Amino acid sequence: MDYLQHFTNAVDAVRREGRYRVFADIVRHGGAFPRATQHLEGATRPVTVWCSNDYLGMGQHPDVIAAMHAAIDKAGAGSGGTRNISGTTHYHVELEQELADLHAKERALLFTSGFVANEASLSTLSRLLPGLIILSDAMNHASMIEGIRQGGAAKRIWKHNDLADLERQLDELPPMAPKLIAFESVYSMDGDIAPIAGICELARHYNALTYLDEVHAVGLYGPNGAGVAERDGVMAEVDIIEGTLAKGFGVVGGYVAAAAPIIDAIRSHAPGFIFTTSLPPAIAAGALASVRHVKANADRRVQLHAQAAIVKRRLTEAGLPVLEGPSHIVPVLVGDPVLCKSLTDQLLDRFGIYVQPINYPTVPRGTERIRLTPSPVHSADDIAHLVEALGHLWSEMRLRKAA
Amino acid sequence: MDYLQHFTNAVDAVRREGRYRVFADIVRHGGAFPRATQHLEGATRPVTVWCSNDYLGMGQHPDVIAAMHAAIDKAGAGSGGTRNISGTTHYHVELEQELADLHAKERALLFTSGFVANEASLSTLSRLLPGLIILSDAMNHASMIEGIRQGGAAKRIWKHNDLADLERQLDELPPMAPKLIAFESVYSMDGDIAPIAGICELARHYNALTYLDEVHAVGLYGPNGAGVAERDGVMAEVDIIEGTLAKGFGVVGGYVAAAAPIIDAIRSHAPGFIFTTSLPPAIAAGALASVRHVKANADRRVQLHAQAAIVKRRLTEAGLPVLEGPSHIVPVLVGDPVLCKSLTDQLLDRFGIYVQPINYPTVPRGTERIRLTPSPVHSADDIAHLVEALGHLWSEMRLRKAA
Repeated sequence: MDYLQHFTNAVDAVRREGRYRVFADIVRHGGAFPRATQHLEGATRPVTVWCSNDYLGMGQHPDVIAAMHAAIDKAGAGSGGTRNISGTTHYHVELEQELADLHAKERALLFTSGFVANEASLSTLSRLLPGLIILSDAMNHASMIEGIRQGGAAKRIWKHNDLADLERQLDELPPMAPKLIAFESVYSMDGDIAPIAGICELARHYNALTYLDEVHAVGLYGPNGAGVAERDGVMAEVDIIEGTLAKGFGVVGGYVAAAAPIIDAIRSHAPGFIFTTSLPPAIAAGALASVRHVKANADRRVQLHAQAAIVKRRLTEAGLPVLEGPSHIVPVLVGDPVLCKSLTDQLLDRFGIYVQPINYPTVPRGTERIRLTPSPVHSADDIAHLVEALGHLWSEMRLRKAA
Repeated sequence: MDYLQHFTNAVDAVRREGRYRVFADIVRHGGAFPRATQHLEGATRPVTVWCSNDYLGMGQHPDVIAAMHAAIDKAGAGSGGTRNISGTTHYHVELEQELADLHAKERALLFTSGFVANEASLSTLSRLLPGLIILSDAMNHASMIEGIRQGGAAKRIWKHNDLADLERQLDELPPMAPKLIAFESVYSMDGDIAPIAGICELARHYNALTYLDEVHAVGLYGPNGAGVAERDGVMAEVDIIEGTLAKGFGVVGGYVAAAAPIIDAIRSHAPGFIFTTSLPPAIAAGALASVRHVKANADRRVQLHAQAAIVKRRLTEAGLPVLEGPSHIVPVLVGDPVLCKSLTDQLLDRFGIYVQPINYPTVPRGTERIRLTPSPVHSADDIAHLVEALGHLWSEMRLRKAA
C-alpha cells in the first residue's frame, strides 16, 4: 500500500473532472468593501469582490469593528476553553439572548460555525428521537446532509420546494412515527425561496417537527432581519431555526433558536458543541453588535434588495441569462464548466472583478453558472462596470444569451 | 408524539445522573490573566481561573492582540466566504505556511476548530482509503471518535498507550490492508503522554499511517513548540499531525500538517472544510503572531513546566492525591461526583478559585477529579492561595488524601 500515491491519485481524479480548486488569495479593504487586494506570486493587484456572502457589508460596520476592538482589549484573543470549562463569557450569554429574541424563541445556542450548527443539531436530534424519520428537501446544504447522515435517522428526500411531494410522503409514513422536516428558506445557488407557511401547515397536520436553515436570509429578510419566516409571518410555526453570524451579520459562527427543552437537549448531548473551544469573546461581541444593529436598522436590508433588483434588471436588459428568483442572489447561467472557469478567470484578469465559477457537484452538470452577490456597498459604478464586463465577455466568448 | 416532553425527559435524565451543566459566565481580564470577572444574576465578582486551556497565556500576549487589532482595521470582521469563494485571505495563506514549517511538513490546512480538524480529516481519510482499518487509542478525544465513526472505516481500539496491545492487534490484521493508527500525545484528563517513537516504529513495520493529535502539546513541548513529537525527535516519523490554535496559541481554530498529497486530498474532499466560512482574518492574524512568537521564544514554555512542577510538588506536600503524570496538566483525584461538584462550588464561592469538576462520562466513574492548568501567568501568590484553599477544603470535606 503506497499511501501517498493513493492520495495523489485521488486528487488527480478531482483535477481530471475539472473540480480542482485553487483558492484566490485576497484581503478585503476594511472600510472600503467591496474593494480588495489579490495576492499573486510576488505581486498584488486591486479587485472588486462580487461573490462574498457578507451580504450587507456588516463586516466593516463601525459598530462591529468597535465592539471587536473593545472585546479584544477587555478579554483577550481566545476564550480559553469549551463552553463548560471557562469558555462561556458574558458576550456569549448576551449574544444567545439576543438571537433568541431575534427569532422570538425561548433560547438560542451558539456553535463555532453554521456548518457545525446544522451537523451537531440534526445528528443530535436524530439520536435523541429513536425511530425518527427526516424529510429532507432535495437541495439541502452539505451541512444538513452530513448532520442527517451522522444521526442515523431514516431519511426521505422530497422534491425541492414541492409541497405536493412533501405531503404525499408524509401521508405514506406511520402516523405515530416521529418526523422532522428539514429545509432552507433561501437556497444559495438558485436563489429561490421555500414555501415556509405551506410546509409548516403540513408539519402541523402530520405532527412533524420543522427545522429551517435561514443562513442565507438572517439579517436580510423580515422587519427585524430575522429571516424569511419572519417576513412571511410564520416564525412561530417553525420549531427550530438555524442561522449564521458569518453572512448577513458579517462575522463568523452559527446558532439554533428554539423552545428551551430542544435547546437544552442539544446543548447537553451534542459532541460538536460540548467538546470544542467556544468562539473568541471578540467574535461574540462583534456578532452581538451586528445583530443589534441589523435588528434596529432596516436601511441595509432595503438597499440590498434594491441593489439586487438593479443588477438583475441591468443584466437582463443586456440579454444575459439571469436565473429568475425572488431572492437577493443573482445566478447567471453559463452551462459549461470550462467556459464558466474561463469567464471568471477573464473577469478577474482583465476587469478586476472577482467571482467564483459554480460548477458540478455544487450545481447539476449543464447548469454551471456564476453567482453574483450584490450588496449595499457596491456603487452604481461597480454595477455599471460589472454589466459592461459581462456583456463584453458574453459576446466575445459567444456564451448563450437569454432566450 | 409530544416532542417537547420527549426532550424535557432527555434533559431530566442528564440531570438525574448529575451531569447537567450550568456554564459559569466569566470574562477574563485581558492583560491581567488569570484574573476574571464572573457574572451572576445581577451581580459580578472577581475570580482566578485555574482551568483554562490557554496554557501559556498567549491570549493576552501583546503581539497577538496587536495583530488582531491591525487585521480588523485592515480587513474587517469576518472573511465573508468559504475558502474557495472569497474567504481565503493572505493571513490564512501565511498561517498555513507557518504551521507547515512548525511541524516540518510540506503543507498545513486550517479548519474552524480542532474538533472539526479531527472530525473532517479522519472521516475523509477513511472515505478515501477503501478497506481502511483504524487503530484508535482507547482514550482518544470525542472529536477523533466522531471522525472515525463518520468515515465508516473498520475500527479497532487498542489499550491506552499500550505498545504491546497495539502490536498484537497490528499483527492480527491482513498485511495488505490499509491501516491508520490514531492517537494523542498529551491526554488531557490524565496528563499522560503517548510513546510516540514506539508507535511510529510499529507503524513503519506494519505499514500503517500515523495520525497524531497534539492539541494539548503544540506551543508547549519541543525546541520550537511543535509538540511532543518534536521534543522526542520523531516528528518526521508521524504522517499527519493535528493541532489547535485555541490552547497553547491562545486564539481559536484547528489544523492538520502532512505531506502535500495528504493535505490536498483532505482539502479537496472534506465537506467540513469545503462548505464552511473560513476563520476571520483577525483570528488567522492573531494565531500567526502567536505561532511565530511561541516558535521563537521558549520562555513561556519553560515557565509553564516550572509552574506545573511547583503546583504538583506543593499539592503533594499538602497530602493531596495528585495523579502523577509527565505533562503540564495537574489532575487531583476526588473519586465522587457529588463531592467533586461541591468542592469546585466552594472553591469558587469561598475562595474565588474557578475550576470545573471533571465527572463521568468525561472520566470513568470513581475517578472524578479536578483538573488544574497552571500557566506562566499564575503568580506565586496564586499558587499559595490555591494550595491553601484546597488543603482547607480537603480537610473540611474529609476528602481522600494521597496514599
